[in-house]
Amino acid sequence: MNNNIAKYIDHTLLKPVATQAQILTLCQEAIQHKFKAVCVNPVHVKLAREKLDGTDVNVCTVVGFPLGANLTDVKVYETEKALADGADEIDMVINIGALKDGNDSLVQDEIARISQTAHDAGAICKVILETVLLTDDEKVRACKLAKQASWCHSDWNEFGCEYLKRHIKKGFHHDNVYLLPHRQT
Amino acid sequence: MNNNIAKYIDHTLLKPVATQAQILTLCQEAIQHKFKAVCVNPVHVKLAREKLDGTDVNVCTVVGFPLGANLTDVKVYETEKALADGADEIDMVINIGALKDGNDSLVQDEIARISQTAHDAGAICKVILETVLLTDDEKVRACKLAKQASWCHSDWNEFGCEYLKRHIKKGFHHDNVYLLPHRQT
Repeated sequence: MNNNIAKYIDHTLLKPVATQAQILTLCQEAIQHKFKAVCVNPVHVKLAREKLDGTDVNVCTVVGFPLGANLTDVKVYETEKALADGADEIDMVINIGALKDGNDSLVQDEIARISQTAHDAGAICKVILETVLLTDDEKVRACKLAKQASWCHSDWNEFGCEYLKRHIKKGFHHDNVYLLPHRQT
Repeated sequence: MNNNIAKYIDHTLLKPVATQAQILTLCQEAIQHKFKAVCVNPVHVKLAREKLDGTDVNVCTVVGFPLGANLTDVKVYETEKALADGADEIDMVINIGALKDGNDSLVQDEIARISQTAHDAGAICKVILETVLLTDDEKVRACKLAKQASWCHSDWNEFGCEYLKRHIKKGFHHDNVYLLPHRQT
């Protein structure tokens, strides 16, 4: 595979039935194809870390996945445990209900706390918006909240997190690709 | 509704888009129909507790939901926070991958720790097996592990938990209803 493309791919296995053998195969494929990262559930971070040590492949995991309806304290703790197990990247799901309730401070605080926790350990944080469940107004508001959670240690953007992710496994929608970057100010 | 039936119903709203207004409506309906419990995501336990105080309706929440692929420590912490927020019932999802890997001690220890945490707070624990993802052998093994996690404070069964749940939202399968109670020894 072309390395330029491979470096943008997170090789992902988040099925609850995933076994250790399948995770090891995922890691081996990521090494072989020089993917950016593997993305695995929290229970598999330690195994992936062991397999990928000494390679250029990152270990990514998910927090509050897939519903995002966990307490902030629990998401932060899940982040801390994942980092201790060796995660390089944290993909967190926002509190979608709180966004719909207009509880912007909760959403923003949660992003800030998890991003800060990740950054303190030298990891990056991606914020999953689950845009398939949001109105356009909510998508724009979520982007602004991520921006305002400005704990970022990176020089190359103004966000509290390094990336915004639209949603998981629901296909490709041009509307969001255009909507999100145009409304972040 | 016939009260005998109503007392077996958990009125449930676990969608990630659920708003506070919808949770309050759920609680009001549970009071009106004398349901056994409402089942809500962890972010809504405190609100449901406030609304249902002084009624006979229990507050149930979920732990490690829906994938079960969180670390045991994180599930235990999520249980503790839910209990502190006022949950009467904890529905936990087992580590399905560990069961498939034959890591029985992890599955059993996790059930035991979460059940114990719930029982210490006077709450009950239900173990969600997600049987739709399991072979018959795995279903039987999961039942035995729940039984062996024998921290139960109750007099009326031998399980570490009070209930085994087959799975979530996948319809009714007679095979499991017959399989599970016949294979617990």
